[in-house]
Amino acid sequence: MASSMQFNPVETPLVILAEGCFGAHQSKTGLGVIRYGQWPITAVLDSQQAGKTVRQATGIAHDAPIIAMLEEALNLSPKPKALLVGTAPMGGDLPSQYRDVIREAITKGLHIISGLHIFLNEDPELRALAQQYQVHLWDVRATTNENIITRQLPRPSGTHVITMVGTDCSVGKMTVALELNNALQKRGEASVFVATGQTGIMITGSGVPLDRVIGDFMAGTLEQEIDDVIKASHPRWVIVEGQGSLLHPAYSGVTMSLLHGSAPDAMILCHNTKLKTINNFDSVPLPSLSRFVEIYESAASWIKPAKVVGISLNTSTLAEDDARAAIAKAQAETGLPATDPVRFGVDGLVEALVNTF
Amino acid sequence: MASSMQFNPVETPLVILAEGCFGAHQSKTGLGVIRYGQWPITAVLDSQQAGKTVRQATGIAHDAPIIAMLEEALNLSPKPKALLVGTAPMGGDLPSQYRDVIREAITKGLHIISGLHIFLNEDPELRALAQQYQVHLWDVRATTNENIITRQLPRPSGTHVITMVGTDCSVGKMTVALELNNALQKRGEASVFVATGQTGIMITGSGVPLDRVIGDFMAGTLEQEIDDVIKASHPRWVIVEGQGSLLHPAYSGVTMSLLHGSAPDAMILCHNTKLKTINNFDSVPLPSLSRFVEIYESAASWIKPAKVVGISLNTSTLAEDDARAAIAKAQAETGLPATDPVRFGVDGLVEALVNTF
Repeated sequence: MASSMQFNPVETPLVILAEGCFGAHQSKTGLGVIRYGQWPITAVLDSQQAGKTVRQATGIAHDAPIIAMLEEALNLSPKPKALLVGTAPMGGDLPSQYRDVIREAITKGLHIISGLHIFLNEDPELRALAQQYQVHLWDVRATTNENIITRQLPRPSGTHVITMVGTDCSVGKMTVALELNNALQKRGEASVFVATGQTGIMITGSGVPLDRVIGDFMAGTLEQEIDDVIKASHPRWVIVEGQGSLLHPAYSGVTMSLLHGSAPDAMILCHNTKLKTINNFDSVPLPSLSRFVEIYESAASWIKPAKVVGISLNTSTLAEDDARAAIAKAQAETGLPATDPVRFGVDGLVEALVNTF
Repeated sequence: MASSMQFNPVETPLVILAEGCFGAHQSKTGLGVIRYGQWPITAVLDSQQAGKTVRQATGIAHDAPIIAMLEEALNLSPKPKALLVGTAPMGGDLPSQYRDVIREAITKGLHIISGLHIFLNEDPELRALAQQYQVHLWDVRATTNENIITRQLPRPSGTHVITMVGTDCSVGKMTVALELNNALQKRGEASVFVATGQTGIMITGSGVPLDRVIGDFMAGTLEQEIDDVIKASHPRWVIVEGQGSLLHPAYSGVTMSLLHGSAPDAMILCHNTKLKTINNFDSVPLPSLSRFVEIYESAASWIKPAKVVGISLNTSTLAEDDARAAIAKAQAETGLPATDPVRFGVDGLVEALVNTF
């Protein structure tokens, strides 16, 4: 596997760094780890919301405090053991104001967990400091740099790979994938989640940071990861997180490799109802959901046919009535079951999967 | 730019290493450099064809000898100054039998030029040897690792970006792009060629080794390269080499990034008439050329509309009559001008471009 955990999460309480953005889009890594990870959360660092709890700031059922200074976390219980960089800025650079906090955390004996494109282990100052204070710097996006080319590995019959595809980045692919995986397991189905992004890897402890892999090896690396997972646990379901969008001007190549590298048996289309264009690219309007279904089914079929069998909507900006209306509209338009997995669960999607195979 | 030349090619005679495969598909890097590069060619190293000339082995109008042992080249004129690894094996590893030749070349004072994925500069033995003998190791695929995200940079009106797209790898995208660029320049048009693969970079001295770039940055790195080229020379035409195929199970993501990162105004579709499936992937049959036109126009349109305006065929496995018939069939099927650029020139494609804009 391309990236794997260096800590036992249940024994590693976290301070999550989300300065100036906790609860917002940019803090999605932190939110995902709080919502789905096994790590105890000691506190969230965001001076602009200090004094609130996670629950008050985000609605997530967690009472960890939001604090203004890292120092405050050191006396809280559970005693923190690591600082997790909880933001995913475009491009993944290290925001300059974060360096001070990371430096301070290291000197207080905290390990650092980062999914940024800039690797902390390649930063001479931070690496030296980590050695001095004997803490780990886990660069979640660092890969083992094996040069793996797709080989179209055979799959055992009875194993179904389900890949999340999206209208854009950050539309809920990881969320619905984790919810689906949990729901399938609760039904007694053998199901595994394959992380393809830094937050998913932080949550599950392993996976492929696909957007960090060299172009020629993206599809092959993901194919290998799925093959490893199938051989390790013989699941009926492999739920692949997904990444980006075929319509994203910067990341479409990653999504294309993810689609062809995972070679799914079915797809779930994910969308955030607030989006009218690709985020940060106003020149790229989003077509209808049914057009997206056509696009993904067509692109999959170039290598291996696969159908979109359900729609997952992030309706978090809508009132509940409007959310229900948006879901009903998506169902009517596409003829597929639709839901907001956080608000209304994933029963309909699970039924669609089980009935398809 | 992402990779640039370390030598003046006209002053650097080459020995081209193509052991066991000169003239065949695997030696396409060497063939491209001989056909289109400015480097003097002292000899080609391929023990299986030693005694022939390049012309006798390949039909290319060049009388450099093919030799069995590197040593033989040292007394030939022009005296060689570099060894160029002239093969592009799948995945780009260093074939084990090549290591001995590279080691010997270094000890004879030759620089090494390599487009492999395995970087010679990262090989402790070869790097130490190169330092000892004061020669350069040019890893053509090495990038500067700038993390560039697509910004949809504006383009000056009157500049037309033309991207080569293909049914598969190695179908003649670089060849037709270089021929088009030459033909446009001969007509007095301001035209530049943008290399996107190792052979193109060896020929022109700069470019983006796109398949080596990290997934998230492929499109942005190519966009930046095109922007740099436009700002440097204000061309009317930017001819982008292209890479892979949207239907290639391993490399489709690279092609997708190339398409969206170059954001072409028009495309040329390239095909080798001998192919019925993706090379090495028999499970992926190639659809018709007109279906390929639809696929590329559709995928381009997700970000910015662009038409395929001509077809370039590699008919090298066909007799001339059959080649003419294949070209006529492609024209009839697609309604677009078609040619084999090596056999019949690119006049029809140049007309199509000039008449489109």
